[in-house]
Amino acid sequence: MDQQKTPLYSSLVQHYRHYLESFHVPGHKFGAIFSPKGLTFFRDILKLDATELTGLDDLHAPESVIAESQALTAALYGVNHSFFLVNGSTVGNLAMILSVCGEDDLVLVQRNSHKSIINGLMLAGAKAVYLSPEFDPEVRVPAHVKKDTIKAALEQYPQAKAVILTNPNYYGMAVDLTEVIEEAHKRGIPVLVDEAHGAHFTIGSPFPKSAVECGADVVVHSAHKTLPAMTMGSYLHVKSNLVSLEKIRYYLQILQSSSPSYPIMASLDLARHYLAMIKQEGINEITKQIQQFINGLNEIPQIKVVYSKHPEITTDLLKVTVQTRSSLSGFELRQQFEKHGIFPEMADAHNVVFVLPLAKDFHLDKTLKNIKESLKDVQSEGFKLPDIPDHPYGKIAEEPISYRDLKTYSQKVVPFHEAVGYKAATMVIPYPPGIPLLMKGETIMKEHIESIQQLIDRGARFQGSSFIFEKQLEIYT
Amino acid sequence: MDQQKTPLYSSLVQHYRHYLESFHVPGHKFGAIFSPKGLTFFRDILKLDATELTGLDDLHAPESVIAESQALTAALYGVNHSFFLVNGSTVGNLAMILSVCGEDDLVLVQRNSHKSIINGLMLAGAKAVYLSPEFDPEVRVPAHVKKDTIKAALEQYPQAKAVILTNPNYYGMAVDLTEVIEEAHKRGIPVLVDEAHGAHFTIGSPFPKSAVECGADVVVHSAHKTLPAMTMGSYLHVKSNLVSLEKIRYYLQILQSSSPSYPIMASLDLARHYLAMIKQEGINEITKQIQQFINGLNEIPQIKVVYSKHPEITTDLLKVTVQTRSSLSGFELRQQFEKHGIFPEMADAHNVVFVLPLAKDFHLDKTLKNIKESLKDVQSEGFKLPDIPDHPYGKIAEEPISYRDLKTYSQKVVPFHEAVGYKAATMVIPYPPGIPLLMKGETIMKEHIESIQQLIDRGARFQGSSFIFEKQLEIYT
Repeated sequence: MDQQKTPLYSSLVQHYRHYLESFHVPGHKFGAIFSPKGLTFFRDILKLDATELTGLDDLHAPESVIAESQALTAALYGVNHSFFLVNGSTVGNLAMILSVCGEDDLVLVQRNSHKSIINGLMLAGAKAVYLSPEFDPEVRVPAHVKKDTIKAALEQYPQAKAVILTNPNYYGMAVDLTEVIEEAHKRGIPVLVDEAHGAHFTIGSPFPKSAVECGADVVVHSAHKTLPAMTMGSYLHVKSNLVSLEKIRYYLQILQSSSPSYPIMASLDLARHYLAMIKQEGINEITKQIQQFINGLNEIPQIKVVYSKHPEITTDLLKVTVQTRSSLSGFELRQQFEKHGIFPEMADAHNVVFVLPLAKDFHLDKTLKNIKESLKDVQSEGFKLPDIPDHPYGKIAEEPISYRDLKTYSQKVVPFHEAVGYKAATMVIPYPPGIPLLMKGETIMKEHIESIQQLIDRGARFQGSSFIFEKQLEIYT
Repeated sequence: MDQQKTPLYSSLVQHYRHYLESFHVPGHKFGAIFSPKGLTFFRDILKLDATELTGLDDLHAPESVIAESQALTAALYGVNHSFFLVNGSTVGNLAMILSVCGEDDLVLVQRNSHKSIINGLMLAGAKAVYLSPEFDPEVRVPAHVKKDTIKAALEQYPQAKAVILTNPNYYGMAVDLTEVIEEAHKRGIPVLVDEAHGAHFTIGSPFPKSAVECGADVVVHSAHKTLPAMTMGSYLHVKSNLVSLEKIRYYLQILQSSSPSYPIMASLDLARHYLAMIKQEGINEITKQIQQFINGLNEIPQIKVVYSKHPEITTDLLKVTVQTRSSLSGFELRQQFEKHGIFPEMADAHNVVFVLPLAKDFHLDKTLKNIKESLKDVQSEGFKLPDIPDHPYGKIAEEPISYRDLKTYSQKVVPFHEAVGYKAATMVIPYPPGIPLLMKGETIMKEHIESIQQLIDRGARFQGSSFIFEKQLEIYT
């Protein structure tokens, strides 16, 4: 297939160029009507903000230009089918889960999954066995699930309808999933991978091995995260005999707007085009420039670029994790950078994560100077990283959580210290990285409460519970 | 509150202007990296395609600029709370339903609802009693549900958790809901209204009375349909003591991307601004111009602008329904218009619907000439509208459909003629207008099959079933 083509984007442009009179939605009529305040930024994109007009296909029943653009994407990624998503990887995760499991079906799920994975299980009323990840002592974050953990779970739960993994994690740490996927496939169990942060892994070396290459059945990609696509633009890829394309299509149609955004879809077409046009020399140059950036960062005494030393982990070149070597926490380090106009992706207690672009000539030398400048008054003398508290990420869930049963319990809100021993009635999600610290239905331990308290003290934000900052939690009774 | 303000949009612009090195998602870095093919149209909007950066708030836990923009919207509409939606009215309908009913809860639902309403009931596992609408003989489409039908249903099902109505319909036909809402409220039952096509009704005369003014508890608006907002931008308004704001927020967080689109949110801020700035003189001028347009259309012998003659129905000024007075069907009429560069909103067997903008000076005189020109070779002599077949829209569902039970049945695909008497295992949705002809769980009648056949013959498209064009249907056995 000719990857130079952009069937959807090109038809939108053609429609606009030949275009005369719009008597359809949207109400802005290709930008002819709009709040004058916003025209500077919106004028051009509104020319492509169309609807399901003749010739522009229909995302929910694609036959022409959307079908072609999706087919080009599938060809590039080497899968049977690619779906364009306009509601982020969130909707991809929800749809892939709903398509493989119904009420009370058991699934094996990585403990440090994005909240959309857990929400999918809840909507399905599934029964989840959570697999605890390894904790990485260098980066100080939860990472992958060990092969042995997955194999033991497959052994213990042969009735599982799916294995649901996240790879890489938010910090770009990835493992080769081939072996565990083969193990699951031997038992006829499909493996679904949330590879939100790895839409570019298909390039190959020096990037980690992609989930598709490892043999995953369904893979979800946030195209907007590492490729140049508009926010909310994602892909869902299927290469499997074990899952139903029709069911995935069905749930995507339910969970996505019946008026999907053409600009977002067109940006997915263009992001695929961008990715397809990258040449080996480009990759080499990007690699060289990022390596120089990292070397420069490591000359700054108040910070250190950290990587996992785990032999199985490969870290994405585009994710650079900087760890504090000063009295500043990761959160404070970010504030310091932001004061100097440098906006990183996220911070945790000890780290700040930079997401670098899949492009060369991004003025990384200038950024390096700014970072040095931003830290010049920060002391690094006598610094020691605090001990890592024994936190609940590492605990193995004792029993499956049945999301169907949870629906029948009643709830109340209690102070932190009274919550211990009860089942949590809400997820507690420090954000970023959006990994649930407490899951709905999970028994609350003293360690959970301590971790929440620490995160509050260190300035984290939370999604899920709305009572956290009043030091209260929702519980099931 | 100062409706001149646009807190979210203005902060995005400010963030961009103070630029700022992006080491966060999205991957295009405010447009610095993008497929060169697309830059012309995307360059400016990408400057606002940000993420949850410091100062830009968080849709799922709003505290600053998004909270302020939502508050301005709530003030304009006269409600307690307005949510910005980035996944269309689809997600508003899903969330409002999931927030009021759980498994096996009974709800009263208008028969001719958008598919997202039925999808919401299905996700909830609710039990639905469908209320049949009146059929309008002038416009030849299903319209509102009679007051008596709703009152009788409230009488028969006092345990109902909600009444779910659609007003106006796709053709802009609206009724005053005050009386039925009062009746429901007397029983402590909330009324949820899909007012997707009426985001502008809050202006007042000459537009139909808005659902908020009628006392509805929850109202969903497709801001993108009649206001100048980007596609997928919608509002969900709450003014109620009977529904839980917290539950709605909870489901919106589950069903919408954890990386919501800032351009879409900013366009919602700007659309509210646009609406707030409209003056009475503007409305008068728009009314005058549309009336002239309608008069002009009525001088064309091959078509006629039709309105309901039902005394309770008021039709939205912005929706102009043109009915064929020639040998052309509605579908063919649309084709004829499109050949001349005029793109209407939709067509059915007899009608073509135009959505006019909420703006004056839209060159309607020029359009009128084009329409005349497009029909000049079409005969109108001896034309007679075909008889309306006795179609299944008018039938009253005999028994509640339990969406929970449906999950346990098995399915197969059979030819049309073998399907009669079985329960449909799929919705059949001619599109537009997106109203299900057959609902999942509904017993298939001969009349359903005849209607489907007629629609196929007349060139309609379908969502839902993928076997329609093979003359097959999915059934439960």
